[in-house]
Amino acid sequence: MEAQQTPEKPDLDPFFMPRRIALVGASADYRKLGNSILMNLLASEVEVYPVTRNRDRVLGVKAYPNLAAIPKPVDLVIVAIAARHCPNLMKEIRRAGARHAVVISGGFSETGEEGARLEAKLVNAAREAGVRLIGPNCVGVSNSRLFNGTFTMMPEPGNIGLVSQSGALGGMLIYTTKAKRIGMSKFASVGNAADIGIVDIVDYFREDPKTSVITIYIEGVKNGRRLFESLRMASEKKPVVVLKGGRSDAGGRATQSHTGSLAGSTRVFDGMIKQAGCATAPTLDTLFEIAKLFDYQPSPRGRNIGIISNTGGAGVLAADAASDFGLNVPRIDENTRKALRQILSPLASVDNPVDVVASGGRREYRVTVELMLADPNVDMLMVICAVPTFAGMTQTEHAAGTLEAIRAAETDKPVVGVWLAGDVGKPGKDLLEMNRIPCYDDPYVAALCMSRVAEYAERHNRSEQ
Amino acid sequence: MEAQQTPEKPDLDPFFMPRRIALVGASADYRKLGNSILMNLLASEVEVYPVTRNRDRVLGVKAYPNLAAIPKPVDLVIVAIAARHCPNLMKEIRRAGARHAVVISGGFSETGEEGARLEAKLVNAAREAGVRLIGPNCVGVSNSRLFNGTFTMMPEPGNIGLVSQSGALGGMLIYTTKAKRIGMSKFASVGNAADIGIVDIVDYFREDPKTSVITIYIEGVKNGRRLFESLRMASEKKPVVVLKGGRSDAGGRATQSHTGSLAGSTRVFDGMIKQAGCATAPTLDTLFEIAKLFDYQPSPRGRNIGIISNTGGAGVLAADAASDFGLNVPRIDENTRKALRQILSPLASVDNPVDVVASGGRREYRVTVELMLADPNVDMLMVICAVPTFAGMTQTEHAAGTLEAIRAAETDKPVVGVWLAGDVGKPGKDLLEMNRIPCYDDPYVAALCMSRVAEYAERHNRSEQ
Repeated sequence: MEAQQTPEKPDLDPFFMPRRIALVGASADYRKLGNSILMNLLASEVEVYPVTRNRDRVLGVKAYPNLAAIPKPVDLVIVAIAARHCPNLMKEIRRAGARHAVVISGGFSETGEEGARLEAKLVNAAREAGVRLIGPNCVGVSNSRLFNGTFTMMPEPGNIGLVSQSGALGGMLIYTTKAKRIGMSKFASVGNAADIGIVDIVDYFREDPKTSVITIYIEGVKNGRRLFESLRMASEKKPVVVLKGGRSDAGGRATQSHTGSLAGSTRVFDGMIKQAGCATAPTLDTLFEIAKLFDYQPSPRGRNIGIISNTGGAGVLAADAASDFGLNVPRIDENTRKALRQILSPLASVDNPVDVVASGGRREYRVTVELMLADPNVDMLMVICAVPTFAGMTQTEHAAGTLEAIRAAETDKPVVGVWLAGDVGKPGKDLLEMNRIPCYDDPYVAALCMSRVAEYAERHNRSEQ
Repeated sequence: MEAQQTPEKPDLDPFFMPRRIALVGASADYRKLGNSILMNLLASEVEVYPVTRNRDRVLGVKAYPNLAAIPKPVDLVIVAIAARHCPNLMKEIRRAGARHAVVISGGFSETGEEGARLEAKLVNAAREAGVRLIGPNCVGVSNSRLFNGTFTMMPEPGNIGLVSQSGALGGMLIYTTKAKRIGMSKFASVGNAADIGIVDIVDYFREDPKTSVITIYIEGVKNGRRLFESLRMASEKKPVVVLKGGRSDAGGRATQSHTGSLAGSTRVFDGMIKQAGCATAPTLDTLFEIAKLFDYQPSPRGRNIGIISNTGGAGVLAADAASDFGLNVPRIDENTRKALRQILSPLASVDNPVDVVASGGRREYRVTVELMLADPNVDMLMVICAVPTFAGMTQTEHAAGTLEAIRAAETDKPVVGVWLAGDVGKPGKDLLEMNRIPCYDDPYVAALCMSRVAEYAERHNRSEQ
């Protein structure tokens, strides 16, 4: 539930850059969230003050019986106690010097009418005390360079901001991106969004110099107009990628019991997101695949895609997918074709998609990538490799050749890899990704991502004119 | 190029179940394909006769200067020598006792007019000698329980047959399925399909008791009518999943230089595949994800899908995806809801999608899966888990609870898992997959696969009536 009316433009710095944090509900019991959160906070670059009535020390750290007992003023209070005790805590929080609280506790509007009344009580108590709230019913907040105020993993440090209406999906996206070594700047799970909502976080990420791409998982909000304005303003400044849950009737029904929000009609919502200049992610998996491309690579000047492969079949599938997503697969320049003909195997195909055939190794990838990047008909490049298992070819040479060419070309055209073949392809894929060349498992996903950056670039150039 | 007219219904057993294989072009040079193929053959359960003029022994094995020098009749000859020498070899092959040859060598119709003339010469020589050909310009043939007659990896043993018009994509699919531990029965790369084509292999897989699902990568064929009949007959007997390359103009252009075949019009082709009762795979990655579900799980009786999750957001996305793919997400039975209400957390949502919430562990998964499988409104089940990282929950307990329930229910309803969260989810995912519960990374892919098996089941039941 978004706040009906927000009293003032909130200052969110204490949520994302606190120096001193109190945890109310710190616990020595490994089954409690207050235990996981404390462990995460103790591993962070912040001063931590555990609050609990049960013990003098928790996890080896001095504990305080209440907020008033903490000797220094705190910037942020994280709350993980039973829902019914939360409203009365708000005054104490303000007295302890904080104006910002993250309420992890569940048991509010997501559980029905009684919970909704408790949530209203919480919001009123916070307003009276002058405390801004993230949550309740959320996973928490983290800043990958500073602290982890959640009960889930710390994200890999990086440039992508994530705000999620679903806490668990947010946590899951952290796990997945960590496994893929995609870095996040800041993460916020807004839960029931009783006060601070997605819009506030997007506004904050827009101005955050450490966030270069904004990702959003959203089910629905009360104030669609405000969301539209926030997305429009953000996407003018940096790319915004949105995954919408609750598009179908069945999905929409489920969101009501999940975050208590009404999912908007699909078409209206999707149209709104696009009109606001944001990219849409069709699935969970593609949200960060798209964001990664925005983060790692420059914008393309147009929709013309060059495709290189060492197997005709993958080139064919890539051309199909590019066409499906509205990209052009142009013929390449006569001079490029001639140069490729001289260098590649007589069995190679030197039109776009270029097929360097299975014998093409490091040298062929280097020369072909360099020639394609120099071709005036090519705005962006997809380099595909079905990694061979011959003794005569190493598993990383195609990736090395591709990297050499990109470095030598000093290009401003975006390049992505599609490294086929499970474990066999992993070393080459890792080499590319560590050098910020996004590398995908399927040409379909690569084409989808490239279409999103091309659309964003077009819109962006248009608004500059 | 498919054969214009096939002289007789071919006996393909010697291609897939040979006892004695000769390799013409066996090589000690690790850069040659004849070296990789020989290594693969030597690791197989067959007698191998390397043929080369250069040496007495290759890789420690006695070599023969020509086919005539081999002391026993061979069942199959694999050819990896320069294209121009291939036509003259056909008579020798027949004289050595074989009627079947796999021509790996490239340099035929895929290279232009001159190559096409050489290919015609090869086909004529084979016909005159009474030799049936797979290839040329192919990766080879393998039977995962017997031998690897390719220069790529041996597939994991299993029940899925693969025939590919692209050799490298076929090899790449082997790598990928191996990494995912999906098993194949037999693999054939048909290359230019100068004699034996996709249709012949599909007909063979249809009658092969070791193949329970057929997968196909196809760009185009000359005789569409024959393909249709072959697909129709095969899909009546077992599921057939088809990935079509060259649907777009750019992709279609690329197939010409790739396998020399003309890609058919998309709509005509897709419509034809569906009319023949086959499932279509939209992307490379989904070809075996769909086949895996066909292979591992029973057919559903209808389109009603039950969804279980420990995070509302994922349930919402799963319901959306199920609706996108034409599945129903029904309300579940009143009795099921009551029973779930008694057992699950008060915070849980007990309508479909069921949300057991984050506190739901082994017990909650076991009880919920069992109740949902017993519900008359549920034809198939998607079990989702955002794997937590609390100390209080182990990473595999949700998977264990799910498995216990499936075993206890002795159900004939198909179940799939969606184990979210990268590396963190892997142990649970592995546990499910090793027990033949297909497990996906994204509810979108899971819903796609379930829609394909539901469509196949509907069609199959209909034709039984």
